[in-house]
Amino acid sequence: MEKNRLKKLFDFFLEIDQEKFIGRQTYLSGALRKENDAEHAWHMAIMAILLSDYSNEPIDVLKTVTMLLIHDLVEIDAGDTYAYDEEGKKTKRTREVAAAERIFGLLPEDQGRRLRALWDEFEEEASAEAKFAHTMDHIQPLMLNAATEGKSWAEHNVQLSQVLERNQHTAEGSNVLWEYAYENFIRPNVENGRLADSSGGQQSSGKQHRDGE
Amino acid sequence: MEKNRLKKLFDFFLEIDQEKFIGRQTYLSGALRKENDAEHAWHMAIMAILLSDYSNEPIDVLKTVTMLLIHDLVEIDAGDTYAYDEEGKKTKRTREVAAAERIFGLLPEDQGRRLRALWDEFEEEASAEAKFAHTMDHIQPLMLNAATEGKSWAEHNVQLSQVLERNQHTAEGSNVLWEYAYENFIRPNVENGRLADSSGGQQSSGKQHRDGE
Repeated sequence: MEKNRLKKLFDFFLEIDQEKFIGRQTYLSGALRKENDAEHAWHMAIMAILLSDYSNEPIDVLKTVTMLLIHDLVEIDAGDTYAYDEEGKKTKRTREVAAAERIFGLLPEDQGRRLRALWDEFEEEASAEAKFAHTMDHIQPLMLNAATEGKSWAEHNVQLSQVLERNQHTAEGSNVLWEYAYENFIRPNVENGRLADSSGGQQSSGKQHRDGE
Repeated sequence: MEKNRLKKLFDFFLEIDQEKFIGRQTYLSGALRKENDAEHAWHMAIMAILLSDYSNEPIDVLKTVTMLLIHDLVEIDAGDTYAYDEEGKKTKRTREVAAAERIFGLLPEDQGRRLRALWDEFEEEASAEAKFAHTMDHIQPLMLNAATEGKSWAEHNVQLSQVLERNQHTAEGSNVLWEYAYENFIRPNVENGRLADSSGGQQSSGKQHRDGE
């Protein structure tokens, strides 16, 4: 019984090795290559541990970290859907749910149910932990995009309005961190023209965007 | 004050992005390329969460996961020292302590002290969490080496005796997991000749090795 349980766990561990091959659109600092999902999850997990005091609501840090570590496993089957890929986003949910069934299904049943519930919770963005995890998921690439002179934004011709729409719920996990990200990673890139502001500059206040404008 | 604190935290987050460029000797499954430190840490963190019940002693899972996520940050400055690089191991400690001073020193003082203490604890291998973290750190590459037909062992002409010496404390974190790793990742590779057994087959019992032979 134990042997079978361990075999299932190690089959799962070997399967998730594939996440290291799932590429994202974000460039790493230095802009020499793009990030993969495993690197992204590792980075956010450390950020969540060190930033948890800035959550709007108290959070269970281990739960949040676990959520961040596993939330992209579905992309092993479903692939990464770029935040600004409008076509891809139409089928994202269906592809990812099928992936969750298969991948979490490799685990012993109780552990599979546990991770699936955490993934569902992340997707629903309702709990304090899920909100904070989404804040990390949005701020980490903003930081890297800013550090690489907006290279990924330029490649995809991303506009300020798209970045703000993408981040309309970022402040729900942490007002302080969204404000910091807006002031340090977004505003300077609007001012230097890397993020095109098609509204003619009306959207220059972090406060406005925090309210989901 | 808060602004300064957040600036230090984000300077640290950007600095640790470099860990994604620190290569290890382990091949990923499929053996197309080798793993980097960030991918390795992500993988072990998930393993620790799902395997914590197999620890010999009860562990604080968040503490163990944090330890695993940050334990290789020193390699940003010190580089990865291959487990079987006898020359490199002579200067490893000095290089890594200097790196710990600089890298954890980027953080706000309290957070820097916290991570430094966790890294020291990992290095000392004395606490239940540190022992279990080392078990993960040893078992994860064994799993990948076995999955890639011992490619990394072959490249470096690694002998069974070296793998056993490297793993002399692995059972201290978890007897069950060391036994599983021995039976599934080591023994088959001795039997098929990928791990040369220069002792002439005397070292074929997992039980003996668990006692640190």
